[in-house]
Amino acid sequence: MKAVGIVVEYNPFHNGHYYHVTQSKKITNADVVVAVMSGPFLQRGEPSLVSKWHRAKMALQSGVDIVVELPYVYSTANAPVFAEGAIFLLDALQCDAFSFGSEEGKLEPFINTANLIEEHNEEYNALIKKYVSTGTSYPQSLYYAYEQLKQKKNENYIDLSKPNNILGYHYIAAAKKFNLSIQPMTIQRLHAGYHDAINETSTIASATGIRKEIFQKRNVEAIRNFVPNSTYVHLVEWQQQFSKFVDWDAFWPLLKYAIMRYNPENLRAFADVSEGIEYALIKHVKHSENFSQFMSDIKSKRYTWTRLQRMLTHIFTGITKDELHQFKHPTYIRLLGMTKNGQAYLSERKKNLELPIISRVAQAKDQMLQIDIRASEMYALGVELFSQKKIDGDYKTPPIRL
Amino acid sequence: MKAVGIVVEYNPFHNGHYYHVTQSKKITNADVVVAVMSGPFLQRGEPSLVSKWHRAKMALQSGVDIVVELPYVYSTANAPVFAEGAIFLLDALQCDAFSFGSEEGKLEPFINTANLIEEHNEEYNALIKKYVSTGTSYPQSLYYAYEQLKQKKNENYIDLSKPNNILGYHYIAAAKKFNLSIQPMTIQRLHAGYHDAINETSTIASATGIRKEIFQKRNVEAIRNFVPNSTYVHLVEWQQQFSKFVDWDAFWPLLKYAIMRYNPENLRAFADVSEGIEYALIKHVKHSENFSQFMSDIKSKRYTWTRLQRMLTHIFTGITKDELHQFKHPTYIRLLGMTKNGQAYLSERKKNLELPIISRVAQAKDQMLQIDIRASEMYALGVELFSQKKIDGDYKTPPIRL
Repeated sequence: MKAVGIVVEYNPFHNGHYYHVTQSKKITNADVVVAVMSGPFLQRGEPSLVSKWHRAKMALQSGVDIVVELPYVYSTANAPVFAEGAIFLLDALQCDAFSFGSEEGKLEPFINTANLIEEHNEEYNALIKKYVSTGTSYPQSLYYAYEQLKQKKNENYIDLSKPNNILGYHYIAAAKKFNLSIQPMTIQRLHAGYHDAINETSTIASATGIRKEIFQKRNVEAIRNFVPNSTYVHLVEWQQQFSKFVDWDAFWPLLKYAIMRYNPENLRAFADVSEGIEYALIKHVKHSENFSQFMSDIKSKRYTWTRLQRMLTHIFTGITKDELHQFKHPTYIRLLGMTKNGQAYLSERKKNLELPIISRVAQAKDQMLQIDIRASEMYALGVELFSQKKIDGDYKTPPIRL
Repeated sequence: MKAVGIVVEYNPFHNGHYYHVTQSKKITNADVVVAVMSGPFLQRGEPSLVSKWHRAKMALQSGVDIVVELPYVYSTANAPVFAEGAIFLLDALQCDAFSFGSEEGKLEPFINTANLIEEHNEEYNALIKKYVSTGTSYPQSLYYAYEQLKQKKNENYIDLSKPNNILGYHYIAAAKKFNLSIQPMTIQRLHAGYHDAINETSTIASATGIRKEIFQKRNVEAIRNFVPNSTYVHLVEWQQQFSKFVDWDAFWPLLKYAIMRYNPENLRAFADVSEGIEYALIKHVKHSENFSQFMSDIKSKRYTWTRLQRMLTHIFTGITKDELHQFKHPTYIRLLGMTKNGQAYLSERKKNLELPIISRVAQAKDQMLQIDIRASEMYALGVELFSQKKIDGDYKTPPIRL
């Protein structure tokens, strides 16, 4: 059996995702679609709208055959590290190819960009450093450095200011770094921009737009046209059970408490807490009524919104810099669910996999896995606090079988 | 003006306390009663029933003239450290005497005991160590060692198994240690034992008995006979405003979250977390539905209930071992409230006081004071979480003037 891998967050699964899944399968002529999906905390530094189990179900009912969890260590990291964890896992699952959506849509410019940056890596990093030292934000510095590098050779390169192009580039760079045999492939994204609001004349909207609509209208009906029916059903089910969808505002009382427990010095145990931001956190947290107010109080030109949110994610979960930065690559395959088709694939490959498949985590000794469990428990505790209802813990939940 | 000092928690202020205040003033012929009162977290390792401001008001309306806050560093410590902080402050406030309630009731046996232990201090500590090494709890070991020491000389000694005698002994030892000129005095406690349930034929009950009754009946009416009217009024006011009285069960969701954020190694940053108790904390916290269940899960012969609660207090507030153990003595007088009489006394003495009087804490640079502020904020956040109502922060609240 032939497998194509994809890297996803599904927050929540929508029609654009459905297009990506079916196209990836069709173009690569694969029998199985394997998705590496972020757990409860996402790459932009946010808790997911609904639990990872709900999100895995949406995926399995809409064309994905196997869902494995991207460990917290990677799912909450910057793009290069996020990509390394994800692509390493897809290769460990013996996928022949990985397929990503991009603004670019063609593979060749990605390869050119990856080669260009690899060949002039030292110069590239020196340029970035130079821009950062003038007070420019990291992503912006990276963009300037890249624009300069592109003058070296007259080739087609990707536009590295587009969010999905950036991720795509890092996927390819990760495969290079680990010397993996998995082959890249890209699909042109349908027209919804990453941050676009939903557009009533279309059935495609970004996950960001969909979440915004859900929180504004407090109602799943409003986004029904933009998601497969199974997504709609699972969102309704979540709302009935837990009353609210999860965002930082829902977790704000706990996050506030977590920050207030520290003096500034001790906050430095967390990733990305440096350069004096610890004083701003302590100063503003007491007087902020909600998460948005807090963010606008601590935001400065120096830090991107995403970096601040990732920092707050680690403070929320209590996972320190030392705990995060001790790993070279993923050490297990955490299976969240599979279809019959997915199961057949895993049976075929099981004996030759180099990483252990984790189906239940009753006695986790693995440190990376212990971090995942803690992150899921923190998420569950946050939900319990506002809903007075429990999410089954990672200990109890077996993989979903469809 | 002549001042007598007392060391109190007033959780809540009751008729026994009233007797102590009036007798102390009468016997010492004092013009002013100065109380050093624990802040929001108490010596037994518990949050106080109502805020420190409510407790200070009760005191000022029932005969106390000046209430100052015993800093968190001392109020949540073991008896020797608690006593050092309290007596040091009373001396700093130039009280002529301090008066404590005791089971013993006469001063001479206290002096004899303090001299005996001072004279044979090394032997005493060696004996305690010997008993502890056999697995005996610390308080029990201390008691055995003392019984042995008493054989040295044929004098009247206090019974060191009684909780108020123990505290009294430590007050006297603290005054000796710092070479203070303040004079000890003791008053026989009225008949209610420390842990006794309330007795309907009396108007005296212990604070423990009163709290138990309040939580069981969820009603202040039941304890009306055991407290001055001002206590009753302030308790009713609290209940109307915040719906619940504070105990560990009320703070349980936050405490649970705080513990779950740690791996065992990182929990060792907190005072009293050692000898493997960190693993028990992590193991049991996930499955405990409330504080009492958690305590009975982690309780073993090795640890007293009080020591465990103090440990949990520090985890709740986030105040680490290093932060706690950096001080030699109190560094300020934090004024919570005063009567006109108290104000006259302070005006008289103000110029000669060796510690600064802190009335508002808008720009606290003092590290001990920053810890107090954090502890009060954590208490306020806990109350806010269950009541959705805010307690005014330490920043805003000026001393009470009656």
